[in-house]
Amino acid sequence: MSQDPKHIALLGSTGSIGRNCLSVIHNLPDKFKVSYLTTNTNIELLQNQITHFHPRGVVVLDEAKAAAVQALVGHSVEVLAGREGLLEIVRRDDVDLVINSIVGFAGLKPTVEAIKHRKHIALANKETLVVAGELVISLVREYGVHLVPIDSEHSAILQCLVGEERNSASRIILTASGGPLLNTPQESFGSITVEQALNHPNWKMGNKITIDSATLMNKGLEVIEARWLFGLPIERIDVVIHPQSIIHSMVEFADGSIKAQLGMPDMKLPIQYALTYPDRYPMSGSRVDFPKLQSMTFFAPDRNKFRCLQLAYDAMAMGGTAPAIMNAANEIAVQAFLEKKIPFLRIPELIEQALAHQANHVSPDLEHTFQSDRKTREYVRTLL
Amino acid sequence: MSQDPKHIALLGSTGSIGRNCLSVIHNLPDKFKVSYLTTNTNIELLQNQITHFHPRGVVVLDEAKAAAVQALVGHSVEVLAGREGLLEIVRRDDVDLVINSIVGFAGLKPTVEAIKHRKHIALANKETLVVAGELVISLVREYGVHLVPIDSEHSAILQCLVGEERNSASRIILTASGGPLLNTPQESFGSITVEQALNHPNWKMGNKITIDSATLMNKGLEVIEARWLFGLPIERIDVVIHPQSIIHSMVEFADGSIKAQLGMPDMKLPIQYALTYPDRYPMSGSRVDFPKLQSMTFFAPDRNKFRCLQLAYDAMAMGGTAPAIMNAANEIAVQAFLEKKIPFLRIPELIEQALAHQANHVSPDLEHTFQSDRKTREYVRTLL
Repeated sequence: MSQDPKHIALLGSTGSIGRNCLSVIHNLPDKFKVSYLTTNTNIELLQNQITHFHPRGVVVLDEAKAAAVQALVGHSVEVLAGREGLLEIVRRDDVDLVINSIVGFAGLKPTVEAIKHRKHIALANKETLVVAGELVISLVREYGVHLVPIDSEHSAILQCLVGEERNSASRIILTASGGPLLNTPQESFGSITVEQALNHPNWKMGNKITIDSATLMNKGLEVIEARWLFGLPIERIDVVIHPQSIIHSMVEFADGSIKAQLGMPDMKLPIQYALTYPDRYPMSGSRVDFPKLQSMTFFAPDRNKFRCLQLAYDAMAMGGTAPAIMNAANEIAVQAFLEKKIPFLRIPELIEQALAHQANHVSPDLEHTFQSDRKTREYVRTLL
Repeated sequence: MSQDPKHIALLGSTGSIGRNCLSVIHNLPDKFKVSYLTTNTNIELLQNQITHFHPRGVVVLDEAKAAAVQALVGHSVEVLAGREGLLEIVRRDDVDLVINSIVGFAGLKPTVEAIKHRKHIALANKETLVVAGELVISLVREYGVHLVPIDSEHSAILQCLVGEERNSASRIILTASGGPLLNTPQESFGSITVEQALNHPNWKMGNKITIDSATLMNKGLEVIEARWLFGLPIERIDVVIHPQSIIHSMVEFADGSIKAQLGMPDMKLPIQYALTYPDRYPMSGSRVDFPKLQSMTFFAPDRNKFRCLQLAYDAMAMGGTAPAIMNAANEIAVQAFLEKKIPFLRIPELIEQALAHQANHVSPDLEHTFQSDRKTREYVRTLL
């Protein structure tokens, strides 16, 4: 990457990952300079972040709120509005590294635009790789940029792979906490409330990803991401439930040796690693105390109970735009569940219906992907 | 290292590690050529190995048996006798890599001689680093050779460190199975039999190392080895009991991230890694099945019950020749226990007496180390 400090555009700075990113950046002031921050609508927190990090510009997706921010900050900070603003800032010369922590399909376009302008990417947006992994990875190669994952699981895999020949990796073992419903009997799944599904035992995250953790769709998305990030076929990507969330994931090599990355469940660790990769910098925070931990447990996920995980494997096996269809259906379904419009078990049903009824483009370009996403959203809305 | 095939001198070929080494070499015939094999007295197995691996020469430490071997193999194989034979073969030009799997202090001289003749070393002999770690590591640097550990724990640490900046490692966590006496109450330690102490739950190894596992001296020796191999002070080398022996050891980095190496307890894995380092080659064998494993447990070692572990930390803190004194006392004591001349609890007592009564050379050269070893053996024998 370029010389320090790296100039950063942080997309989604007011979300959970965004706030953790700024905490990491705050602790490494010589390494990073925040050039741009962006938010959907949380302009109070954005103003706070402007005061602390002095970006050159910000993007507010809500256009009315953008005008309000401009009135407050005056001419000291450039204020851009709407999705076009995101694409504008990732093109600029005063950005070396784009941190993409936008939630959902909306994260794809800024990633692609940033890569085409030769920006390195620290990626928290899962959907970029889920819906367009093959295309995005080929762009990463074509433009010679680094794309480093922020997800704790993929960060773990990357850490296990440093210094190893990539083709010596024979299996990826993604660990899953099991989410808030791990010990809830399948018979009760018909009456799961939003509050139950949002009550994650180990990780404090945004609402969309927490519901995805409850359905295990989150792990399904990660399987697909891992497939593109690390180039292994999905038959070689296993999921194991590990409720303590201390082992963040593992890689098995051709000789049978396994490497695992472990740590306390704190997103600042994989975030800092993504920003400083392949270097490490000291970070305070609690350490794993093995005698205190006493035990780590493992079991196979129940793919009957957590149908979304199986649907993700199925969509990946179908290929083409099937993962984009699955993802769009999931986004609409999760939003509807959060708004209490559908019951919990309707989420996998809607995804299954979308996969069955939406046309799959076998060798999609980016336009096919956008089309599949749009059409699936329209279709699933008609089912609500 | 040099071009393939690498020419190997395998010191201690009839021992447990030696036999596993030959099994690994057998499976990678294009990579390795056995130039020399050595044994103390097991000439039957040696003849078998000669038939399979066609070495240019062998060393038999027992001189009478050496003559018998020569009579049997005729002029097709050179037969050398005695300890001088070991030093002779490691000097030769038809050796690229010396595998040192000699048990005990006797392994030190051949390691030093091999390094001085610019041979790479795969090291299973613990005592080389325990008694003369500082000297040996400085020779390794001076002669520009690789010294790669075969021990599963140190192999695990090395695997965790590849691709990482060495100075970013902040803590080493050595795992210990706890050995055959882990669950034996301390009150019964007065009456431990040789058979009980030899009954290791996870690893099939030689007698000396199995007794060292029962006292946890083995882990103490490994702490000292790790100190020299990886350059961390012993305050940063922790031991944690992990009875399943699946995690072979771990490294914590400055950012709080931990990397662990895992695998089934099979010495062929770290042996192959040491021979092919930093590359990996496919190896058959059973793989870790996490749902089947179900759980991994951890607790702190009881240093009252296992006094030898504490004595190793103490000897390392004393520095100088204290580790050599400790090691010599332990070798004599373990031998005496195996011969049923002393009870189990006399082992740590003899070590403690030796450390208290033998003079410690603060900045020892190799001669001081040999002297401390010799004098301690004489002293401890007087106590039996």
